[in-house]
Amino acid sequence: MSVGSAEMLFRVTALNADYAAAIDDDRLEEWPGFFVDQCLYKITSADNLRDGNEAGIVYADSRSMLADRVLALRRANIYERQTYRHIVGTARLMQSTAAEVRVETPFLVVRTMRDGRIDLFAAGRYRDWLDDHGDDLRFRERIVICDSSHFDTLVAIPL
Amino acid sequence: MSVGSAEMLFRVTALNADYAAAIDDDRLEEWPGFFVDQCLYKITSADNLRDGNEAGIVYADSRSMLADRVLALRRANIYERQTYRHIVGTARLMQSTAAEVRVETPFLVVRTMRDGRIDLFAAGRYRDWLDDHGDDLRFRERIVICDSSHFDTLVAIPL
Amino acid sequence: MSVGSAEMLFRVTALNADYAAAIDDDRLEEWPGFFVDQCLYKITSADNLRDGNEAGIVYADSRSMLADRVLALRRANIYERQTYRHIVGTARLMQSTAAEVRVETPFLVVRTMRDGRIDLFAAGRYRDWLDDHGDDLRFRERIVICDSSHFDTLVAIPL
Repeated sequence: MSVGSAEMLFRVTALNADYAAAIDDDRLEEWPGFFVDQCLYKITSADNLRDGNEAGIVYADSRSMLADRVLALRRANIYERQTYRHIVGTARLMQSTAAEVRVETPFLVVRTMRDGRIDLFAAGRYRDWLDDHGDDLRFRERIVICDSSHFDTLVAIPL
Repeated sequence: MSVGSAEMLFRVTALNADYAAAIDDDRLEEWPGFFVDQCLYKITSADNLRDGNEAGIVYADSRSMLADRVLALRRANIYERQTYRHIVGTARLMQSTAAEVRVETPFLVVRTMRDGRIDLFAAGRYRDWLDDHGDDLRFRERIVICDSSHFDTLVAIPL
Repeated sequence: MSVGSAEMLFRVTALNADYAAAIDDDRLEEWPGFFVDQCLYKITSADNLRDGNEAGIVYADSRSMLADRVLALRRANIYERQTYRHIVGTARLMQSTAAEVRVETPFLVVRTMRDGRIDLFAAGRYRDWLDDHGDDLRFRERIVICDSSHFDTLVAIPL
């Protein structure tokens, strides 16, 4: 593996860790900042993708739509009743050129309820297209491909 | 830590990620390719190991046995009804010489059923002996040591 | 990211992996050795921290207190009935100077019972302050911040 891809994987790993911590620490307002302005964020399932169903159950194609989502979540106030914890696996570099970095990364999210119960909330993989401008690595696309097609209504929270 | 072991850990991490993705993406036919021809693949439990029971509940000592296993799984067709997701922890380099690389790595596998239920399928650690030929890192041995001794019949799938 | 912080993150990752393996492999006697003599080890919850409750449900401020804890656990003999498996996420370097290294790292612990049941035992994050003396990286502080405030009595085991 070249030094260049090792360094890129390193940066992707740090990005994934920061992204997950922003959500899990309830710093949701920072979440849109991980994306470029003209981005694509989608939550979908492996089944949906296989069937060519492009819709996804969550869809946003700009950073301001992501910001709106956060506002809506804060207003609905459903987020505080439980805690989420992302466990993000090793990123796999699918393609890396100056123009285009594509990675796939498995993830698991567990949820802790106020009464102490912990359950498996979501499992799947991220399919990402990253934008690299110097020190700053941002998501041009983040497609969240869940293993399950049965979405909890609370999938309103970012994954 | 020397540059040499840092690079080796990096390569092992990439190998583990690719291995897990091949299984979780249902590209099972690629699975035997992660092993050398004369390999040892075993699924066992910590209790079995402690008791000196060498058998394991899954045992293969060549790449062609692994390929046979995949064929049998495809024929039985039991694999498609659920999705597996490996979350692989940090590899620990136990020994690394030109001739021999030994690592141990914790893992967790969660399973998503067709009806959306997600459960913890297996937890444990990999005890690996790797073969390093230039760019290519392959398993000479992969001993899958499960924390549980109660094996689901479905452990037919690779871990 | 500088070469220096890349190397530090690498070392922290190895430390976290060794720490987790010592616990999960039931080599508890090695656990105090991951800390400096005058250390702080605490298990608490996000709620406790938020409320300014400094107590924690487990508290030790020296390595010998940690060693006492291990002795007590061995005497109580409650540890052997189940197996724990830590899955430790990517460490985030919050601060790194010659004098002070601070990191935060998400974790998940699953527990396998003797009858084969696997459950989610704990999720949360480590907030660490590390002491770097040459090759040796040790915990000056490890604050284990659990997502849940409902502690199993068995949290007697180290996290």
